[in-house]
Amino acid sequence: MKQTQMRWRLPAVCALWQLLMIILFGVFVRYDEEADAHWPQTRVSHNISSDIENDFYFRYPSFQDVHVMIFVGFGFLMTFLRKYGFGSVGFNFLIAAFGIQWALLMQGWFHSLDPTDGKIKIGVESLINADFCVASALISFGAVLGKVSPVQLMIMTLFEMTLYAVDEYILLNVLGARDAGGSMVIHVFGAYFGLAVTRVLYRPRLEQSNNTSNYHSDLFAMIALGVRIGGAQSAVEEHGGGVHVQNATLAGGVALGTAAEMMLSTYGALIVGFIASTVSTLGFIFLTPLLERYLKVQDTCGVHNLHGMPGIIGGIVGAITAAAATEEVYSAEGLRASFSNRDRMPSVQGGFQGAALCVSLAIGLVGGTIVGFILKLPLWGDPADENCFDDEVYWEVPEEPEPSHSIIISEVPKNSTINGTQAIEHPPTL
Amino acid sequence: MKQTQMRWRLPAVCALWQLLMIILFGVFVRYDEEADAHWPQTRVSHNISSDIENDFYFRYPSFQDVHVMIFVGFGFLMTFLRKYGFGSVGFNFLIAAFGIQWALLMQGWFHSLDPTDGKIKIGVESLINADFCVASALISFGAVLGKVSPVQLMIMTLFEMTLYAVDEYILLNVLGARDAGGSMVIHVFGAYFGLAVTRVLYRPRLEQSNNTSNYHSDLFAMIALGVRIGGAQSAVEEHGGGVHVQNATLAGGVALGTAAEMMLSTYGALIVGFIASTVSTLGFIFLTPLLERYLKVQDTCGVHNLHGMPGIIGGIVGAITAAAATEEVYSAEGLRASFSNRDRMPSVQGGFQGAALCVSLAIGLVGGTIVGFILKLPLWGDPADENCFDDEVYWEVPEEPEPSHSIIISEVPKNSTINGTQAIEHPPTL
Amino acid sequence: MKQTQMRWRLPAVCALWQLLMIILFGVFVRYDEEADAHWPQTRVSHNISSDIENDFYFRYPSFQDVHVMIFVGFGFLMTFLRKYGFGSVGFNFLIAAFGIQWALLMQGWFHSLDPTDGKIKIGVESLINADFCVASALISFGAVLGKVSPVQLMIMTLFEMTLYAVDEYILLNVLGARDAGGSMVIHVFGAYFGLAVTRVLYRPRLEQSNNTSNYHSDLFAMIALGVRIGGAQSAVEEHGGGVHVQNATLAGGVALGTAAEMMLSTYGALIVGFIASTVSTLGFIFLTPLLERYLKVQDTCGVHNLHGMPGIIGGIVGAITAAAATEEVYSAEGLRASFSNRDRMPSVQGGFQGAALCVSLAIGLVGGTIVGFILKLPLWGDPADENCFDDEVYWEVPEEPEPSHSIIISEVPKNSTINGTQAIEHPPTL
Repeated sequence: MKQTQMRWRLPAVCALWQLLMIILFGVFVRYDEEADAHWPQTRVSHNISSDIENDFYFRYPSFQDVHVMIFVGFGFLMTFLRKYGFGSVGFNFLIAAFGIQWALLMQGWFHSLDPTDGKIKIGVESLINADFCVASALISFGAVLGKVSPVQLMIMTLFEMTLYAVDEYILLNVLGARDAGGSMVIHVFGAYFGLAVTRVLYRPRLEQSNNTSNYHSDLFAMIALGVRIGGAQSAVEEHGGGVHVQNATLAGGVALGTAAEMMLSTYGALIVGFIASTVSTLGFIFLTPLLERYLKVQDTCGVHNLHGMPGIIGGIVGAITAAAATEEVYSAEGLRASFSNRDRMPSVQGGFQGAALCVSLAIGLVGGTIVGFILKLPLWGDPADENCFDDEVYWEVPEEPEPSHSIIISEVPKNSTINGTQAIEHPPTL
Repeated sequence: MKQTQMRWRLPAVCALWQLLMIILFGVFVRYDEEADAHWPQTRVSHNISSDIENDFYFRYPSFQDVHVMIFVGFGFLMTFLRKYGFGSVGFNFLIAAFGIQWALLMQGWFHSLDPTDGKIKIGVESLINADFCVASALISFGAVLGKVSPVQLMIMTLFEMTLYAVDEYILLNVLGARDAGGSMVIHVFGAYFGLAVTRVLYRPRLEQSNNTSNYHSDLFAMIALGVRIGGAQSAVEEHGGGVHVQNATLAGGVALGTAAEMMLSTYGALIVGFIASTVSTLGFIFLTPLLERYLKVQDTCGVHNLHGMPGIIGGIVGAITAAAATEEVYSAEGLRASFSNRDRMPSVQGGFQGAALCVSLAIGLVGGTIVGFILKLPLWGDPADENCFDDEVYWEVPEEPEPSHSIIISEVPKNSTINGTQAIEHPPTL
Repeated sequence: MKQTQMRWRLPAVCALWQLLMIILFGVFVRYDEEADAHWPQTRVSHNISSDIENDFYFRYPSFQDVHVMIFVGFGFLMTFLRKYGFGSVGFNFLIAAFGIQWALLMQGWFHSLDPTDGKIKIGVESLINADFCVASALISFGAVLGKVSPVQLMIMTLFEMTLYAVDEYILLNVLGARDAGGSMVIHVFGAYFGLAVTRVLYRPRLEQSNNTSNYHSDLFAMIALGVRIGGAQSAVEEHGGGVHVQNATLAGGVALGTAAEMMLSTYGALIVGFIASTVSTLGFIFLTPLLERYLKVQDTCGVHNLHGMPGIIGGIVGAITAAAATEEVYSAEGLRASFSNRDRMPSVQGGFQGAALCVSLAIGLVGGTIVGFILKLPLWGDPADENCFDDEVYWEVPEEPEPSHSIIISEVPKNSTINGTQAIEHPPTL
């Protein structure tokens, strides 16, 4: 039987990672102006309007929303597995807590390096971006859930955060694509990265008995879905929430608004939501079993349906609406702003959006395959097939306490050696 | 045995509803200025202050709060039923997702129709109003919970959203009543509408065995109550939260503030909260059983206590404080603003507030009765009595997995009088 | 057997408390300007910018966050006890609802008494401060959880809110210490107050069988922890969240920012977080059992590890960073603002910070000891040892309903080779 050797390996990896982070943060990371020590001083002499310009108050509530979603929403959503609730929530914390630090560094090197002193300047916006980066790792986590050890998850996160920063840099800075909702950078990349990893780690004799849900764990996950739908994602699908996403998109200054008066005006958002939710539902029913049987992709949470295909639809819609943008609706200046301040014809921008989608898909698939092979190295304490989807390998699962309801059976045969009180009592049924 | 025929009827109704919405949104609904495609352009040339005037950022957090409450809070609060957690949360989503679209249309026709092009202009504020509209349907859902099919719920929502818009129009525009907290428009209307529906749908032989709670489902509901108390409603009752509601009320610009320095100043809010919570608690203990026995009203969640009576108290307090307002406290201009910009004596406004309460109650009761009879038509797949409060009719409830604890009984004596079915039966495993 | 006599004593105490509050609020408490009845009037003539200056909108979202955390977060976090979920959540409500009113009065007398009319003027900020005050009572609640009656909790809250206001006044107004994060005022005071109470109430023969967790209750608590980590506290520990706390701190205008460019710059926050989380974890493993065995401190939720020691670390870090502040980093004016506008050398301020930490610790320990002896008076219906950690004394816990799965075993033949483990096994009890 395989040893996951959690008792020393995980704490060692965590301590090492954290010490490395402290050193790297010491060398490279400083607060930006808004978090600077001088700020209290200026605050004294200015009224609250200056705080507004400081921009902190505006971004704070959305930071809270994103941050809570990252730390709880994802793991909560995965608690549907009957015996893997601790792993779903706990390893979610692990990925988020360690991933966000590495993401701050990687995104800092690519995006917010101050040329004057060679330091990364971080503020609230950096944290929001790092949260989004971690979101892609949590999406991949959904594909491999229950089948990898926490050390494997940390290795996966390390590489995935790095690739995310590369992918983001290519899409936004090199190709000049717009992706405010993160359809391509977060969802397509994260989903296909995770699917590639789980494909490489294919377990032909995977014990399915633990991979089941029960009533309360399903309810947990259902409520979490509602929170996300209602809150963080605010629901593209089928309830007019498209308007809100549209607004958020515009607020972020994105070219998705291209079609605001054309295809994606209200009913356009409803149509896209209708298609995406239909595709996603049909995917769960028909595609997931086929993926497992023929492509050997064991997608625990169905991230292909939740993130992969909807992400691709989002990318395609973005390309179409960019290509269909007109100066009449947007004005020349507006179009230019929507196209990352590059002088491009709408059809050219549409092409670049399409190319960005392909790049994100490719980096996800190739990167995930390579990382999958790295995770196969016999160093990271991967669980045996029979320990998959089971918290008991990693967590001290509470023993069932003394039963509170008894069944008394009038006679236990005299010569029986059964320990009756132990053997026949019910466990409490909470 | 009745057939709920969910397999084809619900998806068909949903698809039809959604297609109709896409067509109606295409014909009637456009984004308003703040969500317009031109906005990114202006955003480039302005600084963030223009965004403030754009008003989006101010309303966004409260939109999030309301939206999450609608999509999760209500359903979560209803999960106390032992075997109806999926139904509580899932049908809550159904009502919210479909209801909000129809509410946007109905409220748009009544309130935000642009006369120049005949289109409804929607923005974040429209979504908040639609969320409030849906709240009344979710209150009614609480009265009929577990006793109607999802198709019946959709029919009920369709009519209730329509009547809500009519009621709201009469109260606010015709009568000039103020109702920022929604005591009359949301709570009184929603509660008595639902009570009338459940009265018409009275089931004399209702199987009560499923209508029970268990430890975890009660805990779920209790936490949800806390979230609502603490968050969305911010607690009128007995913890000084009245101050906050008062503030929120003022922020909305409502005449409830009439008595700010008189009856409803801090201690006034405490007194009203004390009365409302006492009435509500006593209602659960004494009134609900009487309502069922003598008036044949089977109020699953006790919405009469949670929304009906407190709503009436809120309406009466609003009428009294309006009637007691004086120019000394308010100034002439302030009074006028508080009375919907109409030149009225405080006592006259108080009378109109009282009339508004009666109108809301009447529309709820009459509308609910009519809709109740519509729901009795044998078209909507209503569940049989023995299937009420049971998820298994509508949901694929997870099978209990292989047992993990064993009872080994080597022999049960032949002449034993054990009631085997009772004695050795499994406890339910939630 | 002891009688908790909840049937009349708790409602009587609650009604009495509430009536007293209504009278005291009537005599002493008024809304401040921002919540004044005149406000709607000015609102009519001004545009939304005036609302900004009104400051309401800025503080509102953080009020929501804090308020939800107080009303739900704490109790939710304590639901890990298998049979005490109702008590954890319900008594949390009780403490919060009654405590906040008394806190408004006590903090009002010390901090916001209007000298012109002798009234306490309350607004949103008062509510936030009262929420923080209640937080200390909820921390103490964690130490005594399951071992005291609700009446005892209310008596404890009454005294603790009073002492909190005294402690806060001494620290902030007399000593001029800065404590924006509440390390000393909330966490150190609350934790050691609760630990002193539980020490005095030591139960040598405490029934430990109910003091156990189960899978779902642990999961509940774990998710709650995530919400707090992610949301309210935004995580000092090991995930770069230090930045955010730093920002929040600065936003509050605190001297913790002293070291912003020195020790507590990014990596400093990581180091402090690393130390605090390590100390806390080791405390749970090694210190808590020692505390119980040798010091007779039965700390149900481990508040010493969660709040006591981290609070002390926070206080020490605050003292060190204050002492190490320089004019170069801060400018003379900034330093002065950071030191409560007093002309002090950094080393002097550091000394005062250290003194403040000791004062908070002392008031907590001495106050808790005295209140512990008050709670020992045989008036408050404390539960017997065997009723500790058990909801059934205080709540109508739902009966287990009729079993839904039956095993009927009419006869099991003597020589049968039944695979007992399969046939009569229990279902898992989650």
